[in-house]
Order: sequence, then C-alpha cells, then structure tokens
Amino acid sequence: MKLYFVNSLGEYVFEIKKNKAVLVEKKLFSSKQKEQVLEKGISSVKQSLKGETPSAKELSLILQSFKEDAKSFKETDEKTTKKKISEAVGVDTLIIQSVSLIEELEKISNTLAKRIREWYSLYAPEVSKKIGDNEGFVSAILKKDKKTLLKELKTKESMGANLDKKDVEQILRLARTTQKLYEERKAKESYIKELMKKTTPNLLILAGAMIGSKLISLAGGIRQLSLMPASTVQTLGAETALFRHLKTKAKPPKHGVIINHPIIQKTLRKNRGKAARALADKLSICAKVDYFKGDLIAEELRLELEKKF
Amino acid sequence: MKLYFVNSLGEYVFEIKKNKAVLVEKKLFSSKQKEQVLEKGISSVKQSLKGETPSAKELSLILQSFKEDAKSFKETDEKTTKKKISEAVGVDTLIIQSVSLIEELEKISNTLAKRIREWYSLYAPEVSKKIGDNEGFVSAILKKDKKTLLKELKTKESMGANLDKKDVEQILRLARTTQKLYEERKAKESYIKELMKKTTPNLLILAGAMIGSKLISLAGGIRQLSLMPASTVQTLGAETALFRHLKTKAKPPKHGVIINHPIIQKTLRKNRGKAARALADKLSICAKVDYFKGDLIAEELRLELEKKF
Repeated sequence: MKLYFVNSLGEYVFEIKKNKAVLVEKKLFSSKQKEQVLEKGISSVKQSLKGETPSAKELSLILQSFKEDAKSFKETDEKTTKKKISEAVGVDTLIIQSVSLIEELEKISNTLAKRIREWYSLYAPEVSKKIGDNEGFVSAILKKDKKTLLKELKTKESMGANLDKKDVEQILRLARTTQKLYEERKAKESYIKELMKKTTPNLLILAGAMIGSKLISLAGGIRQLSLMPASTVQTLGAETALFRHLKTKAKPPKHGVIINHPIIQKTLRKNRGKAARALADKLSICAKVDYFKGDLIAEELRLELEKKF
Repeated sequence: MKLYFVNSLGEYVFEIKKNKAVLVEKKLFSSKQKEQVLEKGISSVKQSLKGETPSAKELSLILQSFKEDAKSFKETDEKTTKKKISEAVGVDTLIIQSVSLIEELEKISNTLAKRIREWYSLYAPEVSKKIGDNEGFVSAILKKDKKTLLKELKTKESMGANLDKKDVEQILRLARTTQKLYEERKAKESYIKELMKKTTPNLLILAGAMIGSKLISLAGGIRQLSLMPASTVQTLGAETALFRHLKTKAKPPKHGVIINHPIIQKTLRKNRGKAARALADKLSICAKVDYFKGDLIAEELRLELEKKF
C-alpha cells in the first residue's frame, strides 16, 4: 500500500515495511512552487504523486523516518566538514604561522634585550655602549663577568654601581630567558626551511627561507602565490607604498620584501628596479613550478640572474 | 721670597720650595670684582696681597702648580661623581625596574600564549575552548597529549587536523619557551618581595608585593612615596581619570592601583571610596615609617582596617 505525504518541501510516497516507513518516491517543489506554497499554502501546488492518505499510526512512522534521515544527514555533514577542516591545514598554514611568529619573537627578544641593557648598565654601563648587537650583548654578559668584560673593553674602572650578587643574578636570569627566545627563533627558522624543502624547493633555493616564506605569508598561501603575476610578487610587502602610489602621485614601489635578497642588495641602487623585476619574474616561475610539483630549476635561474647583475 | 701672581679669578702668593711653587696665600675676587675685571681688566681691581713679581722661571713653576692642581681637582671630581652614581642605584631602582619588567613579561607571555592557542587549535581546537587560562593552557598541552586532553574534555573526535609529529613538536617547543617566561615572571615577583622585605617591610605587609612595588614605581621611589599625602597615594595609577576630573566635570577617581587590594575588593561597591581612603591613609603611614626605618606596625594597621571593612 502506497502512502502519500506532502510538506513544504515536496511530495513523498512511502510504503510500510516491517514497522518502518520506507520512501519509494519523492518529488521536491521547484523554487517557483515553493513561493506559491509560501503565499497560498501547500494545497495550491499541483500534486503529481499518488498514494493513499496515511492513518495516524502510519503518519507517525513516516515522521519518524524523516527524523532519522535528518539525523544521519547531520552526522554525514559533520564528518565531511571535519575532514575538510583537517585537510585545510596545509603546509601553507604552518609556514604562515611560523613567519609571523618569527616576527613576533624578534620584537619580543629585542624589547627584553633593551631592558637587560638598561638594567645591566646600572652595573656596568660601559659594556652596553661597546656591544651594539642585542643578541651579542646578551650572550656576552652570560659568558663573562663584569671584570673580564671591562678588561676586554680596556676600561679600568666602571661607572656602574656595585650591585649585590643576588641582584646581578636576577639580570642574568632574565638574559638566560631571553636567550631561549633567540633559540626559539632559530628553531622556527630551520622549521620553515624544512617545510619549504618539502613543498616549495625552488622558492627555497632562489628566495631563501626567510624571503620565500614571507612571500607565501603575504600572498596567503602557496597556491595564491603561484597564481600571482610577477609584478605583484615584486611589490609584495610594499603595500603601503603601492597604495600611496595609487592614491597620490607618489612613485610606485620598486620592491617589497625581496629588497633584502642578496641579488638586489649587491646591485647598484640605480639598477635595483631592473634587478627586482627580473628576480620577481624568476620567483614567480619558481612558485608556479613548485605548486604544480615540477622539477628543480631554481639553481639554473639563480645562475642566470647572478650573471646578469 | 714671596712671589705675587694674579689672574682673572683672584690674587695668589707663592713661595718656591724644592723647585716647586707652593701656594701660601690666596684671595679670590668677589663677583662684583669679577665684573670689574671683565670690564676694565685685572689691573683695575684693588690688590691687597703683596709679594715680588716672579721671574720667567718662577712664573713657569707657578703655572705648573696651577696645572697640577686642575688635574687633581678633575680626578677628585670624577671619583666623587662615580661614587654618587654608584650610590644612586638604590633598591628603589631595582624595584622599579622589576615592576615594569613584570608588566612587560605579562604582555609578552600572553601574546605568545595566544599564538600557541591559535596554532594548537589547528590540531585540537576543542582544548583551547575549554581551558580559558593562558598559563593553564600552556602547561596542559605540555603535560598531556591530544588524546588524553580530548578524553578529559569528554570530546570523542577532534575537529583538528592530524599534524605530523614534527609539526606538533614545534608547537610544544614554543610552549616550553613561553613557560620559561612565566617562570621568569614568578622569579621577579619573589625578587621584588625580597627587596621589599629589606627596605619597606611595612608596605610589603599591608599592600602586598605587587601593589606595594607598583606604588613605589608610580611615585618614583621610596622617598618620594613617603613624602606624598595619603590622598595622592589613593589615586596613584589613576592619573588618566584624575586629569579627566581636573579638566572636565567628571567624577574624581576613588582609587588607583590599590583597587586590587583584597580589602577594597571585599568591600561593597558603595563603600569602596571610604575603604580606599582609609587604606591609603595606612599605606602612607607605612611608607613614611619604612623610609625612616621605623618599627613593624603594618600588621596592627591591617587588623584595624579589616575590622572596619
């Protein structure tokens, strides 16, 4: 016996088998019909499926079947979504996370190093003056004591205060913690290198780990970078200057993050625009080849560029 | 034989002893006479000391004596300055340095903890949602692996990606470094406590290490704090609100950093102004007693306050 059922979505025909309502035919309303349903009610839509009107007991079985269907649909949907989310975490995401972490770590460790300088200068101001590099300063005061440092700097008597051993120990403790941050940064740099070796070996060779990963991060992913025209790659990271150029009559930027690339750095200032264009061209090629899992061609491209500039 | 010498500063009488000119009498010009010297020359000023005019050889000995005098004066001056600078680094300075370092460390470790949350959420987003406290989150992911954490949170399946062991290790590495920052903060807190125990024991007892040291830092030193009226102590740290009150018709602030004091926190909102005033009174007394190295009276004052509020 076929049972006819209609709701706001469409018409259904069920059959009762082993105390369960099983769907045998279904005809969903078109969007036009749906509008009609909303306006004038279900009965206004022309019915094409045929079956008998279910009894109260049969109707409850039909509704039960709908309920179970919705539940299983929800479960499948959740599973699919979970799987999609899992797969969405690609190497890109890890590279992008690491790049911005490295920038943060740089900022943080320099802030702390400045504090250590300030603090240590109460004790021996001469040392901070002579060692300009923050990381070098931190490791110097950890390696050698005040006397040795002053001797090396050929300073006889320090202007600093005679702090207690306990007080100095607190400065050195902070220095050790800061050194951990420097180490963390180095670890993340080699992590990025490893990630790139696997996924973007060409970009790694031509751009280097730091510039390459910054390009990926600025583009928003390896795929996005591979789809960009070379001219965009050239100015990635120089967005402020680019928009200033577009809004006012300011000169367009010649290079974004690629300015730190050794090839650009070694080129004379007047030729840098040309070099940046050529480098961006090759980098763009590398990104495309990497994205489509091509061969290793970066070494060749680099030699070509080095000959030119 | 006495030799007479005059320069723009005054008149001098020397005697030659063992090939050295030794000063035996000196009369410096008054400021009025100095003006006269500048206007009309040295000869215009009335000379009161008497001696013979030195020969060329004697004159050179006299000048030599002046030179040596200047040199020894410079050396003494340098030594005194160095000593003064050394002594200027009081416990205040160390407390103030540590207070602002703690604030910085708090900011930094929270920034990093947020990053760890973001990163770990690629792997197991459920964990970050359930553990609100940053420090707790960092130590939780270090102590237990993803499976255990999810089990404890009664979550069957994670929405997160299946990251490689290497990738997870990088997240945990960052977590370990961040934990070092939390430890550093704790070390500095007990360092402050120790410094205060020696110098401001009363303030330490009544205000606690964090509030007490912030008061010292905001006042600019223990001496400055001890000289402040209680009403200033009450609003230290609420400068923005205070100036808003002075400029506009906004209400005056009732409390600065002392708002975090347990006595204020336990008081009903409507009585907080009164409590803050009373607490500031007692804190001000503590600061004065501490600065003048008085007895331990803070315990008594605290009991008094606790009875009242």
